[in-house]
Amino acid sequence: MRILGIDPGIAIVGYGIIDVVGNKYNVLDYGAITTKSDMQFPHRLEKIYRDLDEIIKKYEPEDVAFEELFFNKNVKTAITVGQARGVEVLCAKMNSKEIFEYTPLQIKQAVVGYGRAEKRQVQEMVKFMLHLEKIPKPDDVADALAVAITHAASLKFKESFRM
Amino acid sequence: MRILGIDPGIAIVGYGIIDVVGNKYNVLDYGAITTKSDMQFPHRLEKIYRDLDEIIKKYEPEDVAFEELFFNKNVKTAITVGQARGVEVLCAKMNSKEIFEYTPLQIKQAVVGYGRAEKRQVQEMVKFMLHLEKIPKPDDVADALAVAITHAASLKFKESFRM
Repeated sequence: MRILGIDPGIAIVGYGIIDVVGNKYNVLDYGAITTKSDMQFPHRLEKIYRDLDEIIKKYEPEDVAFEELFFNKNVKTAITVGQARGVEVLCAKMNSKEIFEYTPLQIKQAVVGYGRAEKRQVQEMVKFMLHLEKIPKPDDVADALAVAITHAASLKFKESFRM
Repeated sequence: MRILGIDPGIAIVGYGIIDVVGNKYNVLDYGAITTKSDMQFPHRLEKIYRDLDEIIKKYEPEDVAFEELFFNKNVKTAITVGQARGVEVLCAKMNSKEIFEYTPLQIKQAVVGYGRAEKRQVQEMVKFMLHLEKIPKPDDVADALAVAITHAASLKFKESFRM
């Protein structure tokens, strides 16, 4: 089972692709799609779509798992990042992938076993579980791998959260 | 000059296409793309993209004008509608259209000449300016035509707001 995890965003879209073989995880690739704030907004959306489309077509994951957006206050930021996330979800759907989403709480529980875990703990567990030499940077990349791991774990417990 | 106006949304996406000939507006088409809330979310995004793509390819507008999203409080709604708007903006961009956006204030000023105009006044002006027999329904359709008129007016005053 091949899984693409995505930490949605507009300036930085974290992604990570893992293969699940029995109880083991093999990392295929991870990184970030980035767009600069001085680009025109529709162009940023187009770049994200095209780059993500290339990644999906290259690795052909079976499932795509997204982190759920969560904003407390800033509605303006929520609308901007929301628009980017819509494009990312569309891209997975246009490639006929199964799409799932997980909350930050679910991700912490799945990766660390504790819903109130610190960001650093999640990152250390990602590094450990995927046998990486160091924590992937920026944080969005580690977060994308964490949501991929979460989906893998949830499949085992038949608790996947289809969007 | 052919303009497509869009009132972005997830359940209802209003659209209206007008031709600007001198000081006159000719309506080509208007209506709404709709998605039901019991559809899976990625599927709703896909339907919106495909339906809008068909409309753009059919009418080949030169410019596409969007109403800016505006939410006071509900961040959850902002994220959901934001995702749909991202897909709508992407669709215009993928079709190589020039993209503009206008705030509700700019639309009221352009259509009624008064930034604090009531919704009903905007709708009556849309009906009058476009020689329609009645106000288009639902409201989202009248709003889409209003943003198309706003873009047409702003071009005359060289005050268009590129996204």
